[in-house]
Amino acid sequence: MDTMNDQFYMALALDMAERAQGQTGINPVVGCVVVKDGAVIGLGTHLQRGTGHAEVHALNMAAGKAQGSTAYVTLEPCSHYGKTPPCSQRLIDEGVARVVVACEDPNPQVAGRGIAMLRDQGIEVEVGLLRSRALRLNEKFIKYILTKRPFVTLKSASTLDGKISTRTGDSKWISNGQAREIVHTLRHRHQGIMVGVNTVIADNPSLTTRMVVPGLNPVRIVIDSSLRIPLDSAVVTDGQAPTVVVTTEAADPVKHEALVAAGVQVIICGAGPRVDLQSAMTKLGEMEIGSILLEGGGTLNGSMLESGLVDRVVLFFAPKIVGGGAGAAGTFEFPGVELMKDAITLEGLEVEVLGDNVCISGTPIR
Amino acid sequence: MDTMNDQFYMALALDMAERAQGQTGINPVVGCVVVKDGAVIGLGTHLQRGTGHAEVHALNMAAGKAQGSTAYVTLEPCSHYGKTPPCSQRLIDEGVARVVVACEDPNPQVAGRGIAMLRDQGIEVEVGLLRSRALRLNEKFIKYILTKRPFVTLKSASTLDGKISTRTGDSKWISNGQAREIVHTLRHRHQGIMVGVNTVIADNPSLTTRMVVPGLNPVRIVIDSSLRIPLDSAVVTDGQAPTVVVTTEAADPVKHEALVAAGVQVIICGAGPRVDLQSAMTKLGEMEIGSILLEGGGTLNGSMLESGLVDRVVLFFAPKIVGGGAGAAGTFEFPGVELMKDAITLEGLEVEVLGDNVCISGTPIR
Repeated sequence: MDTMNDQFYMALALDMAERAQGQTGINPVVGCVVVKDGAVIGLGTHLQRGTGHAEVHALNMAAGKAQGSTAYVTLEPCSHYGKTPPCSQRLIDEGVARVVVACEDPNPQVAGRGIAMLRDQGIEVEVGLLRSRALRLNEKFIKYILTKRPFVTLKSASTLDGKISTRTGDSKWISNGQAREIVHTLRHRHQGIMVGVNTVIADNPSLTTRMVVPGLNPVRIVIDSSLRIPLDSAVVTDGQAPTVVVTTEAADPVKHEALVAAGVQVIICGAGPRVDLQSAMTKLGEMEIGSILLEGGGTLNGSMLESGLVDRVVLFFAPKIVGGGAGAAGTFEFPGVELMKDAITLEGLEVEVLGDNVCISGTPIR
Repeated sequence: MDTMNDQFYMALALDMAERAQGQTGINPVVGCVVVKDGAVIGLGTHLQRGTGHAEVHALNMAAGKAQGSTAYVTLEPCSHYGKTPPCSQRLIDEGVARVVVACEDPNPQVAGRGIAMLRDQGIEVEVGLLRSRALRLNEKFIKYILTKRPFVTLKSASTLDGKISTRTGDSKWISNGQAREIVHTLRHRHQGIMVGVNTVIADNPSLTTRMVVPGLNPVRIVIDSSLRIPLDSAVVTDGQAPTVVVTTEAADPVKHEALVAAGVQVIICGAGPRVDLQSAMTKLGEMEIGSILLEGGGTLNGSMLESGLVDRVVLFFAPKIVGGGAGAAGTFEFPGVELMKDAITLEGLEVEVLGDNVCISGTPIR
């Protein structure tokens, strides 16, 4: 049963923000609920970068009646003129009496200034209600705003013996429908989707978002050190979403030109023979790709993980055992650690049972 | 809140039987509750092979007052003179009016005859209450009584990338304390524990049951095709439990004699070079070992699984990733299947979260 209190309204603000994941680009998702005299008078969520913030939508709905109200906001109201005027000023101008904030905005342009602005005007501000849920909700935004590099979610589906294909390379299918629906939801919620060129050559995937409701397609990113990507690949020709190929100085300039002519953006990261993944993350960040879903094979997964470039690991396990030894590709192919105590460890572990599949996720710590 | 009905009493009978797992050898675990005039008048559980059955203990407690009572029994009462007189006769003699049975006894010597005996005497018999729980409880007994081969539970603990050691062979430690407590409970509940000789050489384990309460040690079974087991191994010298070494005709007869002299039983299964695992299961069954916990390395696990000799798979996953490719041993090392659709599949999947470890178990189907 519901109990009406501050948490009751903040949870709604978070619910609204959650539904907007994937549509705000490098911006955070934010929800706002305005309550006065025991009733909700305004609701808002930030919909898209460059458009109104959550507080603005909620106060617009309140239509000038917010005097003396309480505003619940999932992220500290902004204090700076960005693409929109500062929300803290709007809250002050509307006469809001009390603001409850789930978490501070780590953006160096805000970082407490929004809260200070409100308090300077005598508004009562409380900070930290449902903070951990709010921080988790914006983990991609927080990583990007602080480092200018994308938040990377590594997703893989394997058998119980850690294989992503049989010894003959067959992988159709490992995970069940429930797991695949989650994967497409993850695609919607990331700005980019990254694979190795071998995946493109082997499977010719479209890497688009296919759900029972329409979703947004991420930018397709292919790691391809020597430009082996076929010019007739779906990601080159289908026009479903932009495609970026990340390569090296060692790649063939003629192929490079052909790809550009086909509408593909080619970026060069390192002299070769392998793509410099650190440089790739920096350049993709400069292109304002703030989040990437990594659906690599074992080698790309292993390299990204070992390089410390993975922020979250999401592993689906199907109840299958296929054997095959070294001939059957594993989820993570990399030289690895010498001692068990030096293993890369997932912290903040979450386990979800999805029919006969199990999803285990967490934050990798080296 | 409890609701008093047939299920209420049968659940107690099953609870009692469950607590006796591991102490009845090749016999089933059975519980019995006798109820009369709204009160429990007798409780019993089968404690050990060759001693009284559950019904006998419960009726003894009832001390001649069971006339007109209802008896709840987790397994069909026996109808034959075995090591004890038939329980069906005792129920008849005591004047029990109604018998509720969770499941039939698949033992060909019983198989419905116990129920028929009761009904022939006008006793009301109901069969099938909590049947699936009762069948699961006696899955080891059922396998053994029908096939004369041991029920094999394969247990392994791996990283999320399916590794049981790093590339240097280090495996200390993979699973957490909660998982290890379950493993020792599994040891208590199996008559035998089986490893490959490489495990004995590498780790010199005692393979005993170590819990916060005392437990029973299983018979140690070492698969050792060429008798490489060191004579100073703990399993040879410590006297904590009997040890059986399974080898081939190709093994050194001098080493064979030395092991026998040290008190080890050596059985020969096949001409070599590898132990004939089918023959081993038949011979271990003839020795009245009705259940085995397989704690093998990847190769023995893979061979047993591929040979269809594994009845249950229990996998613990620790939130670690260690890489190492083919140099780091996997949970299942075997040639494997060509196509994902031909994978060995776990059915009746159970998933349990144990702190930061996850236990996934099920019945392997090829």
